[in-house]
Order: sequence, then C-alpha cells, then structure tokens
Amino acid sequence: MRTRHSKLFVPGPTEVRPEILQAMATPQIYHRAPEFSELYADIQGKLKRFLNTEGAVFLFTASSTGAMEAAVQNCVKKKCLNLVNGAFSLRWHEITAGCGIPCEALTVPWNVAIKPEMVADKLRSGQFDAVTLVYNETSTGLMNPLQEIAEVVRKFPDVVLLVDSVSAMGGVKIEVDKLGLDVCLAGVQKCMGLPAGLAISTASERALARAKEPPFRSYYWSYTEMMKYHKKNQTPATPSIPHLYALNAQLDAMFEEGLDHRFARHDAMARTVQEWALKHFAMYPEKGYWSKTVSCIENTRNISVDKLSDELVREHGVLISEGYGEIKGKTFRIAHMGDLTVPDVRGLLATIDGILGL
Amino acid sequence: MRTRHSKLFVPGPTEVRPEILQAMATPQIYHRAPEFSELYADIQGKLKRFLNTEGAVFLFTASSTGAMEAAVQNCVKKKCLNLVNGAFSLRWHEITAGCGIPCEALTVPWNVAIKPEMVADKLRSGQFDAVTLVYNETSTGLMNPLQEIAEVVRKFPDVVLLVDSVSAMGGVKIEVDKLGLDVCLAGVQKCMGLPAGLAISTASERALARAKEPPFRSYYWSYTEMMKYHKKNQTPATPSIPHLYALNAQLDAMFEEGLDHRFARHDAMARTVQEWALKHFAMYPEKGYWSKTVSCIENTRNISVDKLSDELVREHGVLISEGYGEIKGKTFRIAHMGDLTVPDVRGLLATIDGILGL
Repeated sequence: MRTRHSKLFVPGPTEVRPEILQAMATPQIYHRAPEFSELYADIQGKLKRFLNTEGAVFLFTASSTGAMEAAVQNCVKKKCLNLVNGAFSLRWHEITAGCGIPCEALTVPWNVAIKPEMVADKLRSGQFDAVTLVYNETSTGLMNPLQEIAEVVRKFPDVVLLVDSVSAMGGVKIEVDKLGLDVCLAGVQKCMGLPAGLAISTASERALARAKEPPFRSYYWSYTEMMKYHKKNQTPATPSIPHLYALNAQLDAMFEEGLDHRFARHDAMARTVQEWALKHFAMYPEKGYWSKTVSCIENTRNISVDKLSDELVREHGVLISEGYGEIKGKTFRIAHMGDLTVPDVRGLLATIDGILGL
Repeated sequence: MRTRHSKLFVPGPTEVRPEILQAMATPQIYHRAPEFSELYADIQGKLKRFLNTEGAVFLFTASSTGAMEAAVQNCVKKKCLNLVNGAFSLRWHEITAGCGIPCEALTVPWNVAIKPEMVADKLRSGQFDAVTLVYNETSTGLMNPLQEIAEVVRKFPDVVLLVDSVSAMGGVKIEVDKLGLDVCLAGVQKCMGLPAGLAISTASERALARAKEPPFRSYYWSYTEMMKYHKKNQTPATPSIPHLYALNAQLDAMFEEGLDHRFARHDAMARTVQEWALKHFAMYPEKGYWSKTVSCIENTRNISVDKLSDELVREHGVLISEGYGEIKGKTFRIAHMGDLTVPDVRGLLATIDGILGL
C-alpha cells in the first residue's frame, strides 16, 4: 500500500486539515450521556447559523446517497420530478425509482443547466408533489440556478423542493429558509472539509409534515424518528461520534475564518482555474453556470488525462480527477473546495503547465 | 463540556484503544483510487477469515440499525417473523413494519430466551420467508441459542435467517457459513472495539438472490448495488474512510491477540461479573443464556442505580449503564466487551463494592 499521501484535488473526498483529523481521534462517549447531548446541541446551533435556517438539521450516519434516499422516502407521496443533468442527479432518479417511488426524470444534456421555465412547465401538469435538484453537479462542474428554480417551485404550494447541495455546502452561501428549501442535504467530505462518513440534512416544517403521512418506507431514514430524538439532542441510533467531534471543530474554524471569506476564497479559486482553463482548454458546462467548487474542463487538446494524472501523482503527489461516466476522457476535473487555498490551486496549475509544456 | 474522559463499561460505544483512535485520523484518500481498492480488499480478506465465511462482507456507512433495515428490505418478499425478547429485537420488528414489510412478532418475556421449538412452530405455518434474530440482546444481557435456532430454520429451505450480532461480533466466535446464516450483521462500536459509525453485514448467496427479486425498497441498502461495487473492491457511495482504516488496524490487532484468546478473554470477563452479581444481586436473564459480553443485573438490593452511576463517573471516571426501557431501575448493566480486560472489570467491581459497602 502507498505510504505517501497524495494531496486531493478531486471533488471529494477533499483534503482534511490535521487538526480536524485529530478531532476524529477523540475518545468515545456514551451516546445517551448528557455530554453527548451537549455536543449535539452545540453542533445544532452552529449548523442553523451556518445554513441560515430555524428548522432542524439532521445528522445521518451515512453517505450523501443515504440522505438523498431519505429525502424522497419521507417527502414524496404522489410523484417526484427528478431534474437530471449529470451523474448525481441521474443517481437521485435511480434512487427514487429504486425505492419504488413514482417518478419521472426531466433530462437535459449534461453541459446544460436546468432552467426555471422547464421546471414550471412540468409542474403545471399537477401530477408532482416533489422536485429533486442537484445544486452543484460534481460530475460536470455545473451549478444549477438554485434561487430561480426555488422561486418557481414556490409558486406550486403542494410541491416540496429537495436540494442536493453535496459539493456546494461550505463553499457557497446557502440561505435555506429564505429560499424556501424543504430539504437541503450534503455529505461532509466536500466543501465542508471533513472526512467522509456523515450527511447533513435540513428539514422544513412541510418536509416533517410530509414524513408523517403514509406510505412509510423506512425506519432508519424516517424524519419522524429523527425528530423524536432530535428534541432530546440525540439520534435514534448510535451515530458516528468521531464525525460529530470533527464537524463541531470544523464549524468553529469556519466561523473563525468568516463565512464570507470562505465563500470568497472558493470564488477566487474557481476564477483562477476558469481563467487557466479558458486559456488552454475550454469549460465543459455552458457559460454562466460554472461551479464555484469544482471545474470540469473540456479536453480540447486531446491530451491523455490518464498519463497526466499518473505523472501528477507519481512525481508531484497531487491527485486530480478524470471525467465522470459518459464524459470520461473528454473532460477532466479539478476540485477547489473545502480548505484548499488559492496558492494550492496556483501550484497545481503551474505543475500541469510544466508537464504539458503550456 | 466535560474534559475528562470516562472509561466506558456501557454496552457500546465501548472503549477504543489510542492506536485505533489514531487510525481514524489517517489522511483521506480518493475512494475511486487503486489504494482505496487495496484497503478494501485487505479488509475483506480479514473479515472473511474473522467471520468464517466465503461470502461477501458488506461495509455499510451506517449505524447497526441501518444494516438491520437493509437485511429485511433485501431479504423479505413474503412475510417476516421477528423474534422479540428485548429492546433491539423489538426495534427490528418496528423497522420491518416501518418499511411497510409484512411481518409478525413472536414475543417472549425479556428475561426469557427464544427456544428453537417456538421458531419451528411458527415456521410450520408456511407463511414466512424470513426470520430475524438478535443473537445477543444488548438491552437484557441475554444470548439466544443461535446454533439451535439456526438448525431449526435450516429445515425450512425457503426461509432465510437474518442475525443481528451487534453486541456479539468480536466477543464470541461466529461461524457464519457453518451455521448457515444468510445475514450476520453488527456495528463496530461494541465488541469490535472501534468508534461508532460503520456496520458490517455478511450476505449469503441466498440473500443476494433474494435481493434481486421484487419488490425493491431501497438503493442505499441494496445488496445488488453493493455487490456491483464490491466486485471492484469499492462501495457504491463514498464510505466512512476513517472507519475503514481503523477496522483494518483493529482486525490486525485481533489476529495478533489471537481470536481464541480474544473470545476466552470475553468469557473470563463475563464469568467475573456473573460471579460478583450472583454474590450480591441476581442475573436478570434466565440461567443458561447469560451474555458473554454484557451482564444485565437484577437490582435485588433496590439500590439507586442513578446515584451509583453518578458517583462512579464523578469520583472514579467510569461509566456503567442503567437498565434499558421497561427494565430501567429494576436492572443495571455492566459491559465487558471489546478491548476491556479482566483487570479492568475487577477494578470496576471493587470500586462498586467500595461505594455500596459490599
């Protein structure tokens, strides 16, 4: 097994600072003891401030995929509209179908953003009671227009909006209550800068009410069960306690950096990579929808991405990512998320310049 | 928040050795990189040897409750018989019902073991295609006769046996293939001596075949999805990578200790606590079924368990557990699992003697 760590410029898991790794090594506590509830309450207050919500913020011991499953299992009672323009929004459609939930995909090409009017057109049929949207498609580096789509969905009072912000949360400002998001979920191994293994999910009053209506599809993902324990500052089952310590420490660090500074840093990293990409290659997603946290670059020079990746790892100890699924080879991805910095990104780009002779 | 760690004699989370806590702090790797697959394969080989199985051993990023849900969602197509004699076997019934799966509970008093003939009687009706059994009831310190029940279930070729070995795995020998267990699952925060946040679940060929039949109820818990990635030494979603490092290190430590020695240590700890309990109190479960990993002691002296617990924590930095649910106050529990030792247990008992003047 390799003993030298490669610095991660892949879109999750991302680099984790040593202080946060050390928080993972905190000795275990009993999940029914008062000190656990203190920890839970402490995190809860910080998450509400961080996500601009007065609602509950659930902590699922799960990958993001689990929180995506929870959202549709709790909130869809009639039929779900899955907005699909990438691998993870397609996965959400597969999850919905895989749970036996009636659903339909609205699919556009992977380099094209979902437009609010497309959503409005679909919802006018009256057959849907929920919409799933991936805010930032990790597979394509495309940010869908969350605010505009949320405004459209809000015009349909019986439709809940479920948002995957997996590779956005922690990298861009999300105002959950102001936007009226019924569920806003993420894994912590992306812009949150934590090790993989925990998912965060908000739940609006409407989402909680939906969860109480039949059909019931799960115990582990049940918002109703989560809420019962949430009120006691506990979780229904023993959670990943190491992740709670790390999350608590990282939220403190985020406030210490300043959230505005954190988001500006992500913006600056994104612009740095975009400028470089436009000079030497092209951006894969349509203009106006480039992600602030991961850039998907079109391989216009027809370089061997595999060869480039290999050399970056072997000679320089840095890891970038190939294109995902159907755009493998045609694209490559550079993530600029979490606790990475502009100098980190500049160093990577200069190294690629050296290898490719740019 | 308290800064002094209390040594855990609660039945999970249990004490974790500092070396294992440090393994949790290993820098992150990319879950689609070759080094991840090496780690996964390494763990897989060790788990097969540890659990005496040739089948797949899935790693769910979840609490045990999640793996319990996965088992019934994948393996019950007709109707499930939930064997209930404690809080966690009752929970498995609630999970099954909560997933909308047809089920029936066979309930006996909490201090009574499930007997093989009770199971045979039920299965003869022909209405069930699955049985859930909690091997070691954490809530009552009762070990159900796994081998005898497995022998009975094997006589019904269309019935799969799903076993929760949450607080047994790592403390007693489990021969998955020899016993013909279709699913054998556990969380790692009990006798495995790891931090909470990961669940282990075996799956027999029969279980995998069941998972391919409709109805399909989940994507995250789908054995079929798990198997697709398992073949590549990967997981469908980003798993808790810290837990994989810790599990790998702990399996090495278990083999170094020697599995037989590990199980004998648990046996010796159990006998130490049982002898003490019989001298001063009484054992809660019926004779012949006392757990090797957690003792549930009947409060025959009518002591204040709360007061005892408080003094143990405040004055001595050790934590024991009250009775669970309906037997709170009437019982208390001392766990002797994971990496605790006979001297640890003796020290605890002597301390209790001092407080109670025994």
